[in-house]
Amino acid sequence: MDFSPSPRAAELTEAVRAFVEAEIAPVERRLDARISEARRHGGGADLWRVPDEVRELQRKARAQGLWNLFLPAGHEGPYAERFGTRGGAGLTNLDYAPVAEATGWSSLAPYVFNCNAPDTGNAELLLRYGSPEQRDRWLDPLLDGRIRSAFAMTEPGVASSDATNMQLTAVVDGDDVVLDGRKWWTTGIGHPDCAVLIVMGLSAPDAPKHARHSMVLVPVDTPGVKVERMLDTMGFLDEPFGHGEVSFTDVRVPATHVIAGPGRAFELAQGRLGPGRVHHAMRMIGLAERALHLACERGLSRQAFGKPLADLGGNRERIAEARIAIDSARLLILHAAWKLDRYGAAPTEVSAIKVAAPNVAQQVIDFAMQLHGGAGLSSDFPLAGAWTAARAVRLADGPDEVHKGVVARAELGKHGARR
Amino acid sequence: MDFSPSPRAAELTEAVRAFVEAEIAPVERRLDARISEARRHGGGADLWRVPDEVRELQRKARAQGLWNLFLPAGHEGPYAERFGTRGGAGLTNLDYAPVAEATGWSSLAPYVFNCNAPDTGNAELLLRYGSPEQRDRWLDPLLDGRIRSAFAMTEPGVASSDATNMQLTAVVDGDDVVLDGRKWWTTGIGHPDCAVLIVMGLSAPDAPKHARHSMVLVPVDTPGVKVERMLDTMGFLDEPFGHGEVSFTDVRVPATHVIAGPGRAFELAQGRLGPGRVHHAMRMIGLAERALHLACERGLSRQAFGKPLADLGGNRERIAEARIAIDSARLLILHAAWKLDRYGAAPTEVSAIKVAAPNVAQQVIDFAMQLHGGAGLSSDFPLAGAWTAARAVRLADGPDEVHKGVVARAELGKHGARR
Amino acid sequence: MDFSPSPRAAELTEAVRAFVEAEIAPVERRLDARISEARRHGGGADLWRVPDEVRELQRKARAQGLWNLFLPAGHEGPYAERFGTRGGAGLTNLDYAPVAEATGWSSLAPYVFNCNAPDTGNAELLLRYGSPEQRDRWLDPLLDGRIRSAFAMTEPGVASSDATNMQLTAVVDGDDVVLDGRKWWTTGIGHPDCAVLIVMGLSAPDAPKHARHSMVLVPVDTPGVKVERMLDTMGFLDEPFGHGEVSFTDVRVPATHVIAGPGRAFELAQGRLGPGRVHHAMRMIGLAERALHLACERGLSRQAFGKPLADLGGNRERIAEARIAIDSARLLILHAAWKLDRYGAAPTEVSAIKVAAPNVAQQVIDFAMQLHGGAGLSSDFPLAGAWTAARAVRLADGPDEVHKGVVARAELGKHGARR
Amino acid sequence: MDFSPSPRAAELTEAVRAFVEAEIAPVERRLDARISEARRHGGGADLWRVPDEVRELQRKARAQGLWNLFLPAGHEGPYAERFGTRGGAGLTNLDYAPVAEATGWSSLAPYVFNCNAPDTGNAELLLRYGSPEQRDRWLDPLLDGRIRSAFAMTEPGVASSDATNMQLTAVVDGDDVVLDGRKWWTTGIGHPDCAVLIVMGLSAPDAPKHARHSMVLVPVDTPGVKVERMLDTMGFLDEPFGHGEVSFTDVRVPATHVIAGPGRAFELAQGRLGPGRVHHAMRMIGLAERALHLACERGLSRQAFGKPLADLGGNRERIAEARIAIDSARLLILHAAWKLDRYGAAPTEVSAIKVAAPNVAQQVIDFAMQLHGGAGLSSDFPLAGAWTAARAVRLADGPDEVHKGVVARAELGKHGARR
Repeated sequence: MDFSPSPRAAELTEAVRAFVEAEIAPVERRLDARISEARRHGGGADLWRVPDEVRELQRKARAQGLWNLFLPAGHEGPYAERFGTRGGAGLTNLDYAPVAEATGWSSLAPYVFNCNAPDTGNAELLLRYGSPEQRDRWLDPLLDGRIRSAFAMTEPGVASSDATNMQLTAVVDGDDVVLDGRKWWTTGIGHPDCAVLIVMGLSAPDAPKHARHSMVLVPVDTPGVKVERMLDTMGFLDEPFGHGEVSFTDVRVPATHVIAGPGRAFELAQGRLGPGRVHHAMRMIGLAERALHLACERGLSRQAFGKPLADLGGNRERIAEARIAIDSARLLILHAAWKLDRYGAAPTEVSAIKVAAPNVAQQVIDFAMQLHGGAGLSSDFPLAGAWTAARAVRLADGPDEVHKGVVARAELGKHGARR
Repeated sequence: MDFSPSPRAAELTEAVRAFVEAEIAPVERRLDARISEARRHGGGADLWRVPDEVRELQRKARAQGLWNLFLPAGHEGPYAERFGTRGGAGLTNLDYAPVAEATGWSSLAPYVFNCNAPDTGNAELLLRYGSPEQRDRWLDPLLDGRIRSAFAMTEPGVASSDATNMQLTAVVDGDDVVLDGRKWWTTGIGHPDCAVLIVMGLSAPDAPKHARHSMVLVPVDTPGVKVERMLDTMGFLDEPFGHGEVSFTDVRVPATHVIAGPGRAFELAQGRLGPGRVHHAMRMIGLAERALHLACERGLSRQAFGKPLADLGGNRERIAEARIAIDSARLLILHAAWKLDRYGAAPTEVSAIKVAAPNVAQQVIDFAMQLHGGAGLSSDFPLAGAWTAARAVRLADGPDEVHKGVVARAELGKHGARR
Repeated sequence: MDFSPSPRAAELTEAVRAFVEAEIAPVERRLDARISEARRHGGGADLWRVPDEVRELQRKARAQGLWNLFLPAGHEGPYAERFGTRGGAGLTNLDYAPVAEATGWSSLAPYVFNCNAPDTGNAELLLRYGSPEQRDRWLDPLLDGRIRSAFAMTEPGVASSDATNMQLTAVVDGDDVVLDGRKWWTTGIGHPDCAVLIVMGLSAPDAPKHARHSMVLVPVDTPGVKVERMLDTMGFLDEPFGHGEVSFTDVRVPATHVIAGPGRAFELAQGRLGPGRVHHAMRMIGLAERALHLACERGLSRQAFGKPLADLGGNRERIAEARIAIDSARLLILHAAWKLDRYGAAPTEVSAIKVAAPNVAQQVIDFAMQLHGGAGLSSDFPLAGAWTAARAVRLADGPDEVHKGVVARAELGKHGARR
Repeated sequence: MDFSPSPRAAELTEAVRAFVEAEIAPVERRLDARISEARRHGGGADLWRVPDEVRELQRKARAQGLWNLFLPAGHEGPYAERFGTRGGAGLTNLDYAPVAEATGWSSLAPYVFNCNAPDTGNAELLLRYGSPEQRDRWLDPLLDGRIRSAFAMTEPGVASSDATNMQLTAVVDGDDVVLDGRKWWTTGIGHPDCAVLIVMGLSAPDAPKHARHSMVLVPVDTPGVKVERMLDTMGFLDEPFGHGEVSFTDVRVPATHVIAGPGRAFELAQGRLGPGRVHHAMRMIGLAERALHLACERGLSRQAFGKPLADLGGNRERIAEARIAIDSARLLILHAAWKLDRYGAAPTEVSAIKVAAPNVAQQVIDFAMQLHGGAGLSSDFPLAGAWTAARAVRLADGPDEVHKGVVARAELGKHGARR
């Protein structure tokens, strides 16, 4: 149980931190102001393009080898080397964790480093389970930054916290697989470079519950795929990625587009989600750290009732509680990452951090907002966006309650409970 | 201590409830969809106009006497009669409370009934402290719905939780008063009908701390008044009212525009804020009730893991906690309203409800969001907007911490503490 | 919905308050010291006697008509007049509520005023449902203070939160009823004057679930009744009343000892518990007020780091939160009492206060303990005992979770749920 | 940052676990029953003796080398070897941490292994700062288990959370030092083997604030030392160690009894408390684990409403929250231990765990109590005692609030704050 970053991880984390601060932060401030302007004045359409300065940041990051850092050790084959990761080899989950935290300080950073969801999860899926053809066609350009991808699982008509509820059909019909149904919260579908969706659908309704569904690669321009609308998360559209409601009407793709064969969606989802949840959780830690940082800055620089805000009422206690909560959650995540590296899977630990990280972040950010007064709610600070991000993560990839259920089942299992 | 609505109050509450459900709700759904569309597609500019159907709702409401119901008993002079309140006389705070709760179910309702902040607070101020000229010029058209008004107190450069920090100057110069400085979170300034601002400024820096500031009526078109930008609250601009950042550069108005004479701003603010905080608090209760209502509906109509969502995990416990919290908070507010009616002021009780109501609402809404899954975060349900409204109220009119300070001072005062 | 005490209630509350302060408080301090001494030095046996000075307090209280104040209006027949209540008539639940709060300041007071659990609940049961013979034999001496009684419902072998789990049998056999089984947390059994138990037992296992059990009056000296041991609540034995584990072996009493006839225990329990839960809840409010009072006193009189404790860190915020929580909970209870008076029953509201009151008390007392430092944990202050009392009430008469279930069922019922 | 136990630590932890389960648990159950009996029947005096079976457990533990395991690596000189630690050398804080957790499952275990507070802290103090004479006279017999010791710091008359408040004087007078004043919560003073107190007193009122106090070794039989009374913690006397209120009247000991010379008490206290707080915190983790273990056992073995308790309402969620909270806190403590080992001191991290550990334990134990119903409050389960222990730790060695202050100061210090 060794939580220290290897020298390489420490070096990369430091490089990422420096890049975020020196290169990304100024661009982010300009873009945030532009988004905020667009909201006020109704000119948001161009937010769905990728600004040139972001493309430029990507080029710079890649030139420094800060690219595809998420590629996991042992699964990366020649990819890390081919696609730019400094050092030419993938990182363990434990090594990538502090890098992910560093990218969490900026909502823009993950994309700049080609480490953003859902592309990372999709890439990992192809890396682990994709056929050579699937990899050539989609993984290469993804890692090269030439295309983006989307992930379509949740459905509007059913409680998707129970994934077995999914109703979109993905039926093998001769050499094809045919999809019919509707998805939403399809993240990434709004991106102008989005070329492919990974869609989870029902293939064998009579099979055992966890062998009914398949994951299918669907090119975004396949006839019958229609983005019905883009959804907002508490007013944020998360441009240029976005979250779409997408209908699939008699969508037909070759059966070779099914990843790892029909009926394996649940198995793959487990594999897909473990490392991704560690990334998410560590980015939440980065977000919480940034909020605490802002709270301390504001708390010391503003005065009320004759004192710095930090010295009023319970503010110091809340600063301490934030520090304790963040450090505890970070260690919990590092431990889960370590276990994932060591045993290949750590479902209980991953569910635990899926609960802990966004809740800690949400609480710390709420405090930071309160300390900022009205400013904390406005677009002048990144706190409102950060809060919304944390709130959304409490639902994304399974709500808190489902993950607590996983943890409780494991705990009661030690005492003989079967479920 | 009689908390029951009088027959008239009960009748008005029922009428308001019915109007909200039958008339306002369908319009609100259409407008919410339009706002949501505007956000997605960047056409928000026209949201700053008042839609015809809202003007129509106002006409209908007024025709039914559901107009200016906030006008307080005893202070309304002939206004309630002249400006349409059914029954022709003002309501006590206790009688208005359930009406306010009923309007809280819809973000649009307060405006439809001419009972929206900040116009209600401004109207009360003029009613209590305005000169006959001030009333003729601004109160009459406000109550008539011909103009809107804004309130400018908070400043961007200082911690405004300590109102003595305010730096905008309002200096009497001969027959004029001259304003210089900058305000933000000036609510109502974006409305096309906004005709006047009430601005709080520093007149006598050397006077005792609470006698330094004045409240000045500033017509919105006075030279030197400039809306620098509109602020968003977690992405919501609250069109068509909005919250502006407003600069005042050598703004000169007649000294007769000072309400009740220079140096009385703090005294007036206390008077202005008591009833308004009761209104706000009761609207929060309405909002929380709506969220709980939605949670129950969703909890019973969706299934996961073979059960209605309501029967999963801790959901029933949370429904019970929401019911208990809402009922407790409502009674606390009714008690404060009763005390306000009885004694004219109830600062400790008003601070207590200022803390309790939005926190309860925020917690209940958060639960309702969680139960709705992704839908709860989207614009398909009014929950994200409701949460933001509750979150903002934790800061508006003084942050939680300041109001807790008031309550604690009173409590320790019983034991001899001087401050 | 009128929550104001009637003049009579206000007068009685004031009289009780004054009596508690002037007469009971000094005796209580001496007794607490004696209990504390007994614990240290192992001489606790004599705590199971009633000290003469307590008997003397009872005489004084009765002489002032502060006796049997719990007797409910409308059900008291001639009892209130015969047995000493000042004014000679019973109080409504709403009128008794502030009296109960006043008795809650002292753990000794309820007994001094002949208003202590479980005797009050048992007396009410006999008042409402007892036969004339049952009343003559047990109600008269109870109200006269000549005997005490116990209530036996919970069983050690089953989860008694689900009362239908009860297994002690109470089988009618000719003219007798025969009891076999084991109870615990039989409150009052340790009192030297305890003359009778009301025992809840299973009479008709095949009847509908809520018609299987009976309530039986069992004289404490009936052969086969054995107190196996006295239980402690976090170290407190609650002498001289105590909580016993009691075995019943072939205990035979006349069938006329069944209250209201066999199979009616659940129906009676509902009737018994409504007012009693209001009393409990208001005593919790009294307890919480006392803790807050002590916290303020200590917070102002002790200094650390150059300031009174009250001014350090979040203490003022916590004082405010305590005040808000107490006032909210009190109003919720008064409302439940009012509804109980008005409609005869208010099960949802009573369950709500059963949850709210002890939780608020526990939280306020915990804060007061913390502010007192080590002293707060010791017997030098009544805080440790108060905390334990509040903690126990979270389980007594049904755990929080069961009562939340009642509240949630009612809430979901409004939306059509059947259970 | 390597949190894994070394092979030796793993082996010792396993041995301690096995010993606790096989040897200590049965004795503990018998003793708990005896204490409980004594409470009921007033025969507690003999609890102040050490039962023969406990002495016997000590002999067995020592024979297995499970003795003085707390002795820290690097400071133990020849002590670990001389006084029985298996392996003959001290453990790092990180290595001792899981051992401490294992001892936390039983309130008796620390004493059996000669690893109980306050003796461990006192021994460490002598180890680090004691003169050879002081070590020979007191450290040797302490480690040999022949004597016990007490620690006297807190005073009844002042808020001792601010240690500079201490008023007992310890004045150097020629070759002597003379003590006058009063202490309480002097832990260990009740033990029949208690031979010496370490007393913190004011020596130089005019010196800088943190150089005024000294630590003095005072033999318990020195004239003028008087145990005024033993204090209880929520009804628990913690026999046979106990917490005393002790008066010092003109107590005269040689000046050579001052540890490390006058004025160094604060410096020494820091050194004394770091490892001790890690021990305390890990024992809290052990306690919380035991409570969770009991909750799961009970939750699966009892039924209500047709289901195991664990499956009712929010119980599974609470089990998950307990697991997450415990694991997070444990990792936080291990990290602090690691830092203490690496840097010799980690005051911020130690303050953080001082806050986190007892709060987590208190919350988990409260849940376990609730799940046990009335049984959870009684002496039939160790939960009431466990809760009290956790509650007391929130005050012992500085209340939560003081430690949060330390953490906040460090956090704000990163942003330039001076205090």
